Amino acid sequence: MKGGAAGVTYDAPPARGPHERNIRLDRPGERSTQLYCKEARVPLLTRIRGPRDLDGLTPEQLDELAEEIRTFLVDAVSKTGGHLGPNLGVVELTIALHRVFDSPKDKVLWDTGHQAYVHKLLTGRQDFSKLRAKGGLSGYPSRAESEHDVIENSHASTVLGWADGIAKANQLLKRDSHVVAVIGDGALTGGMAWEALNNIADAKDRPLVIVVNDNERSYAPTIGGLANHLATLRTTDGYERFLARTKEMLERTPVVGKPLYDTLHGAKKGLKDFIAPQGMFEDLGLKYVGPIDGHDIQALESALARAKRFNGPVIVHCLTEKGRGYKPAEQDEADRFHGIGPIHPDTGLPIKAAAQSWTSVFGDEMVKLGHEREDIVAITAAMLQPVGLKKFAEVFPDRIYDVGIAEQHAAVSAAGLATGGLHPVFAVYATFLNRAFDQVLMDVALHKCGVTFVLDRAGVTGDDGASHNGMWDMSMLQIVPGLRLAAPRDADQLRAQLREAVAVEDAPTVVRYSKGVVGPAVPAVGRVGGMDVLREPGTDRPDVLLVSVGALAPMCLEVAELLQKQGISTTVVDPRWVKPVDEAMAPLAERHRVVVTVEDNSRVGGVGSAIAQALRDAGVDVPLRDFGIPPRFLDHASRAEVLAEIGLTAPDIARQVTGLVARIDGRYERTASDVDSVEAARD
Amino acid sequence: MKGGAAGVTYDAPPARGPHERNIRLDRPGERSTQLYCKEARVPLLTRIRGPRDLDGLTPEQLDELAEEIRTFLVDAVSKTGGHLGPNLGVVELTIALHRVFDSPKDKVLWDTGHQAYVHKLLTGRQDFSKLRAKGGLSGYPSRAESEHDVIENSHASTVLGWADGIAKANQLLKRDSHVVAVIGDGALTGGMAWEALNNIADAKDRPLVIVVNDNERSYAPTIGGLANHLATLRTTDGYERFLARTKEMLERTPVVGKPLYDTLHGAKKGLKDFIAPQGMFEDLGLKYVGPIDGHDIQALESALARAKRFNGPVIVHCLTEKGRGYKPAEQDEADRFHGIGPIHPDTGLPIKAAAQSWTSVFGDEMVKLGHEREDIVAITAAMLQPVGLKKFAEVFPDRIYDVGIAEQHAAVSAAGLATGGLHPVFAVYATFLNRAFDQVLMDVALHKCGVTFVLDRAGVTGDDGASHNGMWDMSMLQIVPGLRLAAPRDADQLRAQLREAVAVEDAPTVVRYSKGVVGPAVPAVGRVGGMDVLREPGTDRPDVLLVSVGALAPMCLEVAELLQKQGISTTVVDPRWVKPVDEAMAPLAERHRVVVTVEDNSRVGGVGSAIAQALRDAGVDVPLRDFGIPPRFLDHASRAEVLAEIGLTAPDIARQVTGLVARIDGRYERTASDVDSVEAARD
Repeated sequence: MKGGAAGVTYDAPPARGPHERNIRLDRPGERSTQLYCKEARVPLLTRIRGPRDLDGLTPEQLDELAEEIRTFLVDAVSKTGGHLGPNLGVVELTIALHRVFDSPKDKVLWDTGHQAYVHKLLTGRQDFSKLRAKGGLSGYPSRAESEHDVIENSHASTVLGWADGIAKANQLLKRDSHVVAVIGDGALTGGMAWEALNNIADAKDRPLVIVVNDNERSYAPTIGGLANHLATLRTTDGYERFLARTKEMLERTPVVGKPLYDTLHGAKKGLKDFIAPQGMFEDLGLKYVGPIDGHDIQALESALARAKRFNGPVIVHCLTEKGRGYKPAEQDEADRFHGIGPIHPDTGLPIKAAAQSWTSVFGDEMVKLGHEREDIVAITAAMLQPVGLKKFAEVFPDRIYDVGIAEQHAAVSAAGLATGGLHPVFAVYATFLNRAFDQVLMDVALHKCGVTFVLDRAGVTGDDGASHNGMWDMSMLQIVPGLRLAAPRDADQLRAQLREAVAVEDAPTVVRYSKGVVGPAVPAVGRVGGMDVLREPGTDRPDVLLVSVGALAPMCLEVAELLQKQGISTTVVDPRWVKPVDEAMAPLAERHRVVVTVEDNSRVGGVGSAIAQALRDAGVDVPLRDFGIPPRFLDHASRAEVLAEIGLTAPDIARQVTGLVARIDGRYERTASDVDSVEAARD
Repeated sequence: MKGGAAGVTYDAPPARGPHERNIRLDRPGERSTQLYCKEARVPLLTRIRGPRDLDGLTPEQLDELAEEIRTFLVDAVSKTGGHLGPNLGVVELTIALHRVFDSPKDKVLWDTGHQAYVHKLLTGRQDFSKLRAKGGLSGYPSRAESEHDVIENSHASTVLGWADGIAKANQLLKRDSHVVAVIGDGALTGGMAWEALNNIADAKDRPLVIVVNDNERSYAPTIGGLANHLATLRTTDGYERFLARTKEMLERTPVVGKPLYDTLHGAKKGLKDFIAPQGMFEDLGLKYVGPIDGHDIQALESALARAKRFNGPVIVHCLTEKGRGYKPAEQDEADRFHGIGPIHPDTGLPIKAAAQSWTSVFGDEMVKLGHEREDIVAITAAMLQPVGLKKFAEVFPDRIYDVGIAEQHAAVSAAGLATGGLHPVFAVYATFLNRAFDQVLMDVALHKCGVTFVLDRAGVTGDDGASHNGMWDMSMLQIVPGLRLAAPRDADQLRAQLREAVAVEDAPTVVRYSKGVVGPAVPAVGRVGGMDVLREPGTDRPDVLLVSVGALAPMCLEVAELLQKQGISTTVVDPRWVKPVDEAMAPLAERHRVVVTVEDNSRVGGVGSAIAQALRDAGVDVPLRDFGIPPRFLDHASRAEVLAEIGLTAPDIARQVTGLVARIDGRYERTASDVDSVEAARD
């Protein structure tokens, strides 16, 4: 067995666990190798129960610890999947943070949170065997896991706002506690970060340390003016040296020096800014320290300690390398192993072969559409590859816009693009569109702009936890006047509905689909209005109209089968376009005794609610029951586990519908045992 | 009649219209006075039918035109109410913009839009007699009004995103058209502006002119690091002069000059940035022109023409004075007559005496709460006075946070404040909370933070048009797990429910109320669960359960009276807390034949939908009808006119409920004439 984290090779015998293998260091330096070998049977990492256990370690031991952590991460995450690249990049930074700051008294805050694995390892959480699985560690900080965790939200760019609030509370309550916020350069492109910086800079006497973890990337390389500015900072050859040289020069030539000094003095910021163009941050009133080598623990500790002593807001600019120390990640230009499924640790290749995903169906169809229509352009918010737009970008490099982690801008600039005569398609994870609700409503919809939003990872995604489930979109978007929303049930429908969506030029359209592998085709057996009938009830007086939304179609057909075994006849219909409610829905519903809706979205204000309202408005008072996700935040687990837990399974739904029909219709005289037999019928 | 715009006095006879008065100029300068006198009977303004009519005017005529426009604005807006201060500040800027750019071929875009009155005057819209009234001009740009208008959304900080989109379309379609975006310094504090700047700066070859209209204010003075930076730019004594002086110095002393030149050359930005700290914008890669006197038409034209010729993104920094030329506005430190009701033009004093408003009830109670609880802090997004927090800020200056036009930051920093041990109250216009949906959900609610959101101007506000109606909050917030939402019906309830809200420490709470004057107290006659009964049905087998939300209580009682006259017995209940639905609701509903909900909010996903779902979940299949705002954008008109148009009046609702009861209950045999008699019964 060869390969693994850079500088470390694995030798036989095969490992049984991250700390149970023989490791030979390739690192130069006699002393550290000796040290490691001496203690190889008791790895340093296992001795770290909390941040204060770092205090007694020597610089050499800290470097060793960093290597151990890298080895641990590659080993653990290659088994479970998870965010590998970001965590490999912050090993030294996390160690330094926990050496300089005293968590949990001091608050160490992580933006986005997927780079908190090292933080977990140093705060008493070293069992990664069920990472992101039910009952195991969350892939993000979690207050339930540890008092060292604060922010669970994994949407980007929030940390500075949190830090500002906590720092204000510390100040007002005269609490002796520090706040340090770690934010990536990518997340700085988000508007929230700017709003926070503007506020943080305003209070010169409120201590707050901002660590910019600058790896020149979010998922993909960071874009925009800010990225260019950071690049300038990175390439500046140390302003201290320049400062010293220029000062010396001025002192040597008093005749010129005096007026030049006056000139410098007149400009508010003085010489320092002129030589080292850290300008932007200091323009706002933030002290700037850096750039610091983010893989040099000593340099990091020194900079952080200085920042901690500074009695006001300060930025520490750290340069890190995403995927650091793991060759397959370092060599991956796309996203440096940002988030991965299980992989072979040696090669970094995925263990499962890739099946056709919803994302790839969309991506391929976009290329076709791009060839057919020159007016179609695409937008991504720093996630070109994850949302499937990479091919489109390669074929139409002039027609793709990566706006950074800036969903608001994606939506409002789409309104501008549409007003300018183009048809933009903004592809984004469903949960991230929440951040652009106001722009979808007030910019795109109010102005009747033909913009298509493509929502990937809609519904229960599961293992990324509460903030990654795409369970809000079909409720939030119901509110938007004029917006049309499609939920395709299979690959063919995705292609067809995407085409229908981009054909609409006077209103926003939305196409939303699940995460992962697209299931087999579910053929229609009929059509009512614009809706596909997936199953005829086989009787003129059917009992149940089952409205199936999107990818849940196979499960809904299964529900119908289970009901059939109970003598309950069911029509299954897929509305295709769930907003607006099809005009054929009310007349169809009226021919049934019960209407049941099933959606992979919050029950509150979702498709079921919309259909219920449409029926009320049409005076159709057929009882309706709406199945969906209950209104609470879902703990991480697999999608199947989550669906089972919330009762979104065929047996659960069939059982409930059976009871309902029995009660409402009065035709059936069922006992509790009959109801239970539904489940048995399935096995 | 004396007074009016500065430099202009009015003489008798009293004016009949803005252009039909005698005007004597106080301005110095023989020529311009003569010019004006010569043409006094045909004011310049009336000769401007479109932007190109500005082309032939001399500099003196342009100055005259500016004065005419100021006189017109003070006269017109003092009659109708509207946004006065912002428009008085952009008179010269708007003239210069339409001289240099060729609208509508070039796109002149206005952020927030309330400063577009002058733009309207110069683009063929000079009848301001029904400004913001039904059938009259909108208070914002309106595509229906003019081909010169693009952005109707009056939420701040959007314009740069629109401009970026349109500029991208121009580039892709090789269209020979310019884009110029006018944004206030206050709106630059919004995250959207940052996201857009980052994108705009990225394309060096995409022409786009950004005019920063810097009056040091949004509603109130602009806050934050950006404001400090802009102040630095303003006070810089002209970099050209410094540049010349320093260059000369360097040339004189070649020995020092050479190495210093090399040093300068090594730093990317060079000497210019060092002398004139426009740094921030140029750090991002935006060319900076300014600062320019925003009341000097010649200087503005020169700068804008230069910017227009520049083949890339450029910022023109204009210094303007909000309320310029109108003494009462200039002397008003609070908001410079930002938005006003009808006033006496001489004095600027309001014509109507102020009655007790919802806002003031909230403001007074906050001061009391502040005294009682030291942990209560308040947040405003640049609207201290409009949301009623001015008194609180005066009494507790350490416990008020103005975050700028930054609702996202308001919400997320509130989560931080709550985590830090305080109880923040964020008071904001209902419609503006849309921008913080993701933060309310993912930061406040997910983390179970005790944060209270106070939503002013909820429901139909009317005259500010589509984007100012607070008709989305009770739908959007329904989606948020754990959030509790109160809709007080009168001043006492507002006080009580605010107290109940701030007592909740483990979930977000919301208190929402209408714009304007608070009505008389509506007493409860009973209590069911946590709900107030406002009217007993007077029978054991009542027909209708009427659920009244918030300030609609008096109207709902009127509906009950009208129904009573039809022999329909009605219970009227105010849930007080509309989310979650009270547990007593379903049992209460079950005792009635019909449930009717009435809310001042979008019908889609609102309180009615939530109650309908709660009844379904409880197996209570009593027919329900939900009255609210239809899912469309509402044209500007008075609140009463809008409510009448959408059928939210007592007679409309009574008529519909009568028909419904007749049909469902079957007890009543009514004819169409019976139904119509409901309305007659009211008169």
